[in-house]
Amino acid sequence: MDEFALIERFFASRAAVSAQNREDVRVGIGDDAAVTRVDSGSELVIATDTLVEGTHFPAGTPAHALGHRCLAVNLSDIASMGAEPLWCTLALTLPQGSADWVDEFSAGFMALANAQEIALIGGDTTRGPLSVTVTIHGRVAPGAAVLRDGAAPREGVYVTGRVGAAAAGLALLQSASAAKPVARDDLARRFLYPVPRTDAGRALSGVASAMIDLSDGLHVDLARLLRASGVGARLSIESLPLDADALEHFGRARAIDFALSGGDDYELCFTVPAAAEEGLRRAAATWSCEISRIGETISGDDIIWLEHGRVIDVSDTSFRHFAEESP
Amino acid sequence: MDEFALIERFFASRAAVSAQNREDVRVGIGDDAAVTRVDSGSELVIATDTLVEGTHFPAGTPAHALGHRCLAVNLSDIASMGAEPLWCTLALTLPQGSADWVDEFSAGFMALANAQEIALIGGDTTRGPLSVTVTIHGRVAPGAAVLRDGAAPREGVYVTGRVGAAAAGLALLQSASAAKPVARDDLARRFLYPVPRTDAGRALSGVASAMIDLSDGLHVDLARLLRASGVGARLSIESLPLDADALEHFGRARAIDFALSGGDDYELCFTVPAAAEEGLRRAAATWSCEISRIGETISGDDIIWLEHGRVIDVSDTSFRHFAEESP
Repeated sequence: MDEFALIERFFASRAAVSAQNREDVRVGIGDDAAVTRVDSGSELVIATDTLVEGTHFPAGTPAHALGHRCLAVNLSDIASMGAEPLWCTLALTLPQGSADWVDEFSAGFMALANAQEIALIGGDTTRGPLSVTVTIHGRVAPGAAVLRDGAAPREGVYVTGRVGAAAAGLALLQSASAAKPVARDDLARRFLYPVPRTDAGRALSGVASAMIDLSDGLHVDLARLLRASGVGARLSIESLPLDADALEHFGRARAIDFALSGGDDYELCFTVPAAAEEGLRRAAATWSCEISRIGETISGDDIIWLEHGRVIDVSDTSFRHFAEESP
Repeated sequence: MDEFALIERFFASRAAVSAQNREDVRVGIGDDAAVTRVDSGSELVIATDTLVEGTHFPAGTPAHALGHRCLAVNLSDIASMGAEPLWCTLALTLPQGSADWVDEFSAGFMALANAQEIALIGGDTTRGPLSVTVTIHGRVAPGAAVLRDGAAPREGVYVTGRVGAAAAGLALLQSASAAKPVARDDLARRFLYPVPRTDAGRALSGVASAMIDLSDGLHVDLARLLRASGVGARLSIESLPLDADALEHFGRARAIDFALSGGDDYELCFTVPAAAEEGLRRAAATWSCEISRIGETISGDDIIWLEHGRVIDVSDTSFRHFAEESP
C-alpha cells in the first residue's frame, strides 16, 4: 500500500472542490507541505481531533460514515468559533491496506468536504490500529472569534437543533434488540452522520457572547463554557429540544438523560446578551436548523437545572435513575 | 485521565515559549480551536505527520525521544519548504494513562518546541494504541516556498549533514549484540533525536531550486524530487557524507547501504543552479551543519550512481549485497 497512490486515487479524484480549485491554496497534496494564502483581513482558526476505533466509534462502523464523521467533528469546532472553514489535513492510520475500505471512507470524507467547499491540502497514511486525525483551518475577521469565556450574567442560553439524538442512535447501534426500523435508521444516522452547524456558527459571530459545540454532552460542555466565563446558569429541563424518535423509543426520562449526558450531538451551545435575543430569533427563523432557549446565565458559579420548578441534581450519573425507570 | 488536565499539567507548564508569548497567537490551548494571526506579507506552510508504535519507532522507544522525534520530523517538512516554523498542534493517542510517560514525552516535545521558538496551540489526547500526529504551521514570503519540482538540468545536487547514521543507529537499537558503547550512544541518538535543519532550510529559500527532506532514504527521496522536476541525475558514491561511527561499526558497504536506503536521516536534499553554487559554499561555511555536493542533475530521467567511475545499480534492495559482504 503506497500512501501517495491511495491518497491520489481516492481523495484527489473526488475533490470536486480540490486544492487546485481554491484560490487560497497555492500547493496542495504532493509536496512536503501545503502552501496557502491568508488575506490580511483575517485571523486563522485551527482545530484538531482524533477518532480511535473502540473509543470514539464502535468497531465495524461503516467506512463511509467514519469518513464523514471525522471531518464533521472538526468542522463543528470551527463552527463553534464562529469561523468559516477553509482547508483540512487528514492523518489516516489503517491496520491493513483495504482498497474498498479507503474507497468508502474517502467517499464519505470528500462528500462533506465538497459540500462545505473546503480543500484537503495534505495527508499522511500510515499502517497501524485504525485511527483518524483531522486538523482543520478556518478564518474569521480579526477579533470576531467566539470564545468560551465571553458570557455575562442575565444572558440567554441556547442550543441549535435537537439534543440527545446521537446518544440514542449509538444506544440503538450497540443494542442487540431490534427497534422500529424507520426510527432506528433515523437515530443511528444522527450518531453516524453528525451535521456540523457551519452556517449557524458563522451567523453567530458578533451575536453570541460565548459558544461551544456539544461533543461530551450538554451538561458537561455547557459547564465548561460557564466556568470559562465565570458565570452560572438557571436552566429548564422542559425547554430541552428533545428528539421525537428518541422520545418514542426510549421514553422521556432516557431522552433527557441522552440530552444532558449523552454526547456526540455536535450541536452548538451559546449565550446571547438580552438586547440581541429578539434579533437572533428573527434571524434564526431563516436558518437550516432551529434554536432553543434553554435558560439564562446568572451571577456566581451555580448550574441549576429546574424541572416543573423543582431543582434537579444533574451530574454525569444522576440521570441514570431515569434510565432505570424507563421501560 | 482528563485530557485537559494532562495537557495543562505537562505541556503548558513547560511552554517557556508558550502560545501567550508569541504575538501571533491570540488564543492557544483551551478553547474549541486556536486563533492565530498571519501577517499579510506571508504565505502559510502546513505539514502533518503521524508516528505509530511498531511502524515508525520500536515499542519501548523512550518517551522523551519520541516527544522530540514527532515534532522534529514535522519541523523537517517545514525546513524542506524553506519556511519558518510558527505553531503546532499535537494529537496524542495513549494506551493507558501513565503520568510518568506523558511527563517524559512532553519534556522531549517541549524542549524542541522551545528551542525552535514555536508555540503548541492545540491538542487532543485520546485513549487507544500509541500513536502521535503533529500538524505544523510555518510561514514563507509569497512565492518563496521551495518545492520539489523546480530543479533543471546541470544543477548541483547537495545534502546537509551526514547520511545513513540514523539507519545505523536503528540497526544498533534493534540488534541484540552489544556494540562499542560510545559510538552506540552517538548512533542511537541519531535515530532517536533527529535534528531538523530549520536554519539551513530557511537560508536555502531563494537559493535552492528544489528541496526535499530525507525520511525514506536518499535514493527514494531524491528520486521523488527528480521525478517531480522532470530531470535525471548523475551521482557519486564517493561524495556521500558517510558517518564516521557508522563506517567504524558496520564497514563501508553497509554504511553506503544505510545512506542510500536507510531513511530517518531528516537531512535536506536540494538542487542549486550552477551560478549560485559558489555563493552557497561561502554562505554554508557559517551554518551549523555542513553541506556536501553529491552530483548534478542531467536531462532525461536516468538516475545514475557512480562508484570509482563505474555505474552501480541502486534500488531499495540492491545494496543488500554490501550488507552481506560486511563483517
